[in-house]
Amino acid sequence: MEALDYHAEERRKAEFDVEEMKIVWAGSRHAYEVSDRVARIVASDPVFQKDNRTMLSRKDLFKDTLKKAAHAWRRIIELRLSEEEATKLRFFVDQPAYTDLHWGMFVPAIKGQGTEEQQKKWLPMAYKMQIIGCYAQTELGHGSNVQGLETTATFDPQTDEFVIHSPTLTSSKWWPGGLGKVSTHAVVYARLITDGQDYGVHGFIVQLRSLDDHLPLPGITVGDIGMKFGSGAYNSMDNGLLRFDHVRIPRDQMLMRLSQVTRDGKYMPSDVPRQLVYGTMVYVRQTIVADASSALSKAVCIATRYSAIRRQFGSQNGGPETQVINYKTQQSRLFPLLASAYAFRFVGEWLKWLYTDVTERLQANDFSTLPEAHACTAGLKSITTTATADAIEECRKLCGGHGYLSSSGLPELFAVYVPACTYEGDNTVLLLQVARFLMKTVSQLGSGKKPGGTTAYMGRAEHLMQCSCDVQSAEDWLKPSIIMEAFEARALRMSVACAQSLSKFSNPEEGFAELSPNLVEAAVAHCQLIVVSKFIEKLQQDIPGKGVKRQLEILCNVYALYLVHKHLGDFVSTGCITPKQGALANEQLRSLYSQVRPNAIALVDAFNYTDHFLSSILGRYDGNVYAKLYEAAWKDPLNDSVVPDGYHDYVKPLLRQQIITARL
Amino acid sequence: MEALDYHAEERRKAEFDVEEMKIVWAGSRHAYEVSDRVARIVASDPVFQKDNRTMLSRKDLFKDTLKKAAHAWRRIIELRLSEEEATKLRFFVDQPAYTDLHWGMFVPAIKGQGTEEQQKKWLPMAYKMQIIGCYAQTELGHGSNVQGLETTATFDPQTDEFVIHSPTLTSSKWWPGGLGKVSTHAVVYARLITDGQDYGVHGFIVQLRSLDDHLPLPGITVGDIGMKFGSGAYNSMDNGLLRFDHVRIPRDQMLMRLSQVTRDGKYMPSDVPRQLVYGTMVYVRQTIVADASSALSKAVCIATRYSAIRRQFGSQNGGPETQVINYKTQQSRLFPLLASAYAFRFVGEWLKWLYTDVTERLQANDFSTLPEAHACTAGLKSITTTATADAIEECRKLCGGHGYLSSSGLPELFAVYVPACTYEGDNTVLLLQVARFLMKTVSQLGSGKKPGGTTAYMGRAEHLMQCSCDVQSAEDWLKPSIIMEAFEARALRMSVACAQSLSKFSNPEEGFAELSPNLVEAAVAHCQLIVVSKFIEKLQQDIPGKGVKRQLEILCNVYALYLVHKHLGDFVSTGCITPKQGALANEQLRSLYSQVRPNAIALVDAFNYTDHFLSSILGRYDGNVYAKLYEAAWKDPLNDSVVPDGYHDYVKPLLRQQIITARL
Repeated sequence: MEALDYHAEERRKAEFDVEEMKIVWAGSRHAYEVSDRVARIVASDPVFQKDNRTMLSRKDLFKDTLKKAAHAWRRIIELRLSEEEATKLRFFVDQPAYTDLHWGMFVPAIKGQGTEEQQKKWLPMAYKMQIIGCYAQTELGHGSNVQGLETTATFDPQTDEFVIHSPTLTSSKWWPGGLGKVSTHAVVYARLITDGQDYGVHGFIVQLRSLDDHLPLPGITVGDIGMKFGSGAYNSMDNGLLRFDHVRIPRDQMLMRLSQVTRDGKYMPSDVPRQLVYGTMVYVRQTIVADASSALSKAVCIATRYSAIRRQFGSQNGGPETQVINYKTQQSRLFPLLASAYAFRFVGEWLKWLYTDVTERLQANDFSTLPEAHACTAGLKSITTTATADAIEECRKLCGGHGYLSSSGLPELFAVYVPACTYEGDNTVLLLQVARFLMKTVSQLGSGKKPGGTTAYMGRAEHLMQCSCDVQSAEDWLKPSIIMEAFEARALRMSVACAQSLSKFSNPEEGFAELSPNLVEAAVAHCQLIVVSKFIEKLQQDIPGKGVKRQLEILCNVYALYLVHKHLGDFVSTGCITPKQGALANEQLRSLYSQVRPNAIALVDAFNYTDHFLSSILGRYDGNVYAKLYEAAWKDPLNDSVVPDGYHDYVKPLLRQQIITARL
Repeated sequence: MEALDYHAEERRKAEFDVEEMKIVWAGSRHAYEVSDRVARIVASDPVFQKDNRTMLSRKDLFKDTLKKAAHAWRRIIELRLSEEEATKLRFFVDQPAYTDLHWGMFVPAIKGQGTEEQQKKWLPMAYKMQIIGCYAQTELGHGSNVQGLETTATFDPQTDEFVIHSPTLTSSKWWPGGLGKVSTHAVVYARLITDGQDYGVHGFIVQLRSLDDHLPLPGITVGDIGMKFGSGAYNSMDNGLLRFDHVRIPRDQMLMRLSQVTRDGKYMPSDVPRQLVYGTMVYVRQTIVADASSALSKAVCIATRYSAIRRQFGSQNGGPETQVINYKTQQSRLFPLLASAYAFRFVGEWLKWLYTDVTERLQANDFSTLPEAHACTAGLKSITTTATADAIEECRKLCGGHGYLSSSGLPELFAVYVPACTYEGDNTVLLLQVARFLMKTVSQLGSGKKPGGTTAYMGRAEHLMQCSCDVQSAEDWLKPSIIMEAFEARALRMSVACAQSLSKFSNPEEGFAELSPNLVEAAVAHCQLIVVSKFIEKLQQDIPGKGVKRQLEILCNVYALYLVHKHLGDFVSTGCITPKQGALANEQLRSLYSQVRPNAIALVDAFNYTDHFLSSILGRYDGNVYAKLYEAAWKDPLNDSVVPDGYHDYVKPLLRQQIITARL
């Protein structure tokens, strides 16, 4: 029997080699093979099944998460998975769990901030999960402003201990994942006080719960902070609250790589460069950009597949109606998001390279590229997560009413994704950091100091401030050089305009505050330029496979011209392009959509997502949407009984006109 | 003891009479008094408490909804509430329930489409809730395209009955609220077939469940369609699925006001004008616009209050940090939404007038204003719901991490609100209807036919196509005449540009399809003009109260200039304003934010929302956010036990290195 495939015709239409595109998407043949194999292991395992997740109560969902985490760990050991494979496995299990923080924050914090001795003591236990750790930084009253944290760690020279304490309600630790119910240990960030002096925020390893009976240790109040956005989603995570009542820890549990407190209470910075911390931030943020492309591509895959199944209007002589993917309005909303998924994938790949590069330089004591790398990862984290959150919701709307069903997968994807806009740096705060860096770069333009890396274009300020766009016809907009110059000119002119406005303020900080909305826009322009330029650079590589490069060129153009259209005000009002050229860009964009159309399904197939990972009836590989929606509906607990619970108490008395006397 | 009020200082700063503003917001003193009284009745009633809603399982939530609906009905009877008051009561109970559809769709459908005889038979039962009805239109495979519905109603002259049947899986009714578990009856839309001919979609009253035991009648399969977006939210509603297997109903249960089938199976249109149906659409959509301003104002109220409580950065000498509402980036994102809430409120008020006007004209057989009224309500439904959905999520982000907690109220508000973008006309489909109307209006400009109502400005095409904006200084942007002309010119020029592009296509329908993304943008420009113009018209009324009008003028300018900035590409590329004038608009906007700032809390107080209705710890009237967040966290079921369920099975074996042998 042939497998059912409602998308077969769409797949036949593809003009490129999907298998080769899968490798491009994955980054390498090796990455593709690991992903593919591990995804199948997860998808075929009944314990990892997740399609009923949104129907579980908080308690059941949490228990299910503990089970999955334990089972994942068992499979990792049984199959002797490498670190790369284990990470992939957790990724495909796709349910936020305490292990994310243990592996993603606790272990790296000890590695990055612990001395060699400390690493030797704590890491082996953490690697074997004999202890489970979390990362307790954020407080009820302090998120973005880490330096404002209130928890104190006061050194007591009498006992050679730190006393960890929560002096106020707002100093309660609040949000750390894995803290609420599971972690036995935490890296706690607290103000280091010794000899009566406050040395600011430092990290300390604190045991929270007994390894015998899991009860909180004396002086520790710990619990879950409660339900979060959506059903399923991040409610599988025990984001926690934590209060200390004079909890004592040995002095050597302060993470002492960057600075230490001696036996007699002296504070001593070490000679390890503090910039190393920024290296870690570059690392974390590049993973966030990679996650953005994953989340976005999931949403796009669902919306694209369902847009080819769903038909509405346009029936001729009783024939089938038109697939909604054929409507230009649908294409103009969907295809730029498809292009964005690829764009973010490639910029994420480049950020991985950047991290390696920065790390190597740091090891060689070369800090020169760090500010630029830091600004660029902060900015890319911001624009890719904002765009992805918006895009997931847009994909949901593109699925019409059915996108609102949990079984479409999109509501949960949105709910689980949106915190990325806030954690690891609020997106607006990050853009202001980028803007600060840009203003500094602009101010140094006259000084002979050559801007490097992603700001190299600013070195061509003279040209970019006065150049005019060469576009005469819609096709001209396909030239990478034209696109690059337009984006560079726009970004530079917006930065320069801000710098000029700033210079009118006598107090620069006041000016920066007053103009911050404009500065944010300039930062966005700069970051979008980076994404466009990395996509174009990717296309300069050798990309094998029939038609693969051609498709990527189309998507690159879609991405760039979509931005031109969306930010037309920037481009036209800075004089980078004329209104006529803006209209030509838009015209070219429409024609590109027609080129994407026959390849749309294949372009999302190239993500190589299993139905398990997508967890969406609308996004099923075989397109068998309606029968499966109907089938799934009956699984809702409300359908357990024909007459609903509550009918006799609350509906019948009403129908019988006995509501006044009914016992409600 | 004085009541705690963390916002006291903010409230003292207000420069206007908040009590008078409450009346402006409500629409009249009477409306204010009714709202205020009914809101308090609901807020003080323990049965209507809703702060634990997101923690309930689907079944418990549904049972809770049935209880609230029954209790609401009892209170309505006991307190002898008027229809206006009863509607308000259901509004403040604020939990989607089958009664919404019974009162909002089932009853109006019978009123609008039933003959006098039918109304006499069915309405008294419906008014007393002896029967409960829903509105069964949408099918699994058909939403937007109502004419494509597949359910059939075939007349059988032998028995004088209609046979209602679901011929395909995709013809299953899908989505109707109240259908899944509660409704005893439905107005079912089906293709009327008599004498072998298909007369298209008509409405039929069909009993679904026994009034004795609530079991589905023979031939009827009915159930709930399953979980939807979010926790709490619309999961309180039993959106349902419904299949008919040759279900017979008497001929007189076809709704026969507009057309009928005679005893011998003849199809006969009546002499009642079909345009009446459009009158109903105007009604329904104006309520949706009113709901948009409610939902948006709730979100804005929460975000504004919390922005005044939350502090981050900027501490000087150990003093308190800066309230985040003082940051220009926060203001530039929040205050336009505050202004939008007021703008949508006033355009909603105007739509109420429009509906009355249209109704009176229809009764006098004057259909002349109907197409314009229809286009304008369709368009306003689209742009206000899209903007509101986006704004709720923006407000959530503006609350930082804590906005992600269910107890902030914002996740549930978003989840419960977003379907408004899809139901009663998908927002993109509606904008295309507006665009079609605009293209028709433009094409008739030369013909001497004067465009009326909201398109009257198109009558001044000659001027608007060539006028240039007079703005010389930022202050010039405060003049209503300047704003109006810029918005009119932009809207007209975008429509005319579309019309010109369309004229190049030999097949107009092909052209319309190809250019649809541009047409959508032209429609948005037209609808934004309407909102701006109605705000400006409102300000021409006499508005009493110290400083009240002044505040509204500021908000009106914020709304208009925010749109100018957001759609700068439209304004500049059509030559309506210069880049320099765009920059001046932005400058003026920043200065307006400073004027909104001291009044922000009072401006959201003017919505007069109870803490019950807001259901948000961040939005509490007294601003006591952190203590209450902390208190609420402990109520999560996960905190019922210190050691979580699942610890012994899934965590302990892992910590003890016994995972391989554990029984998972």
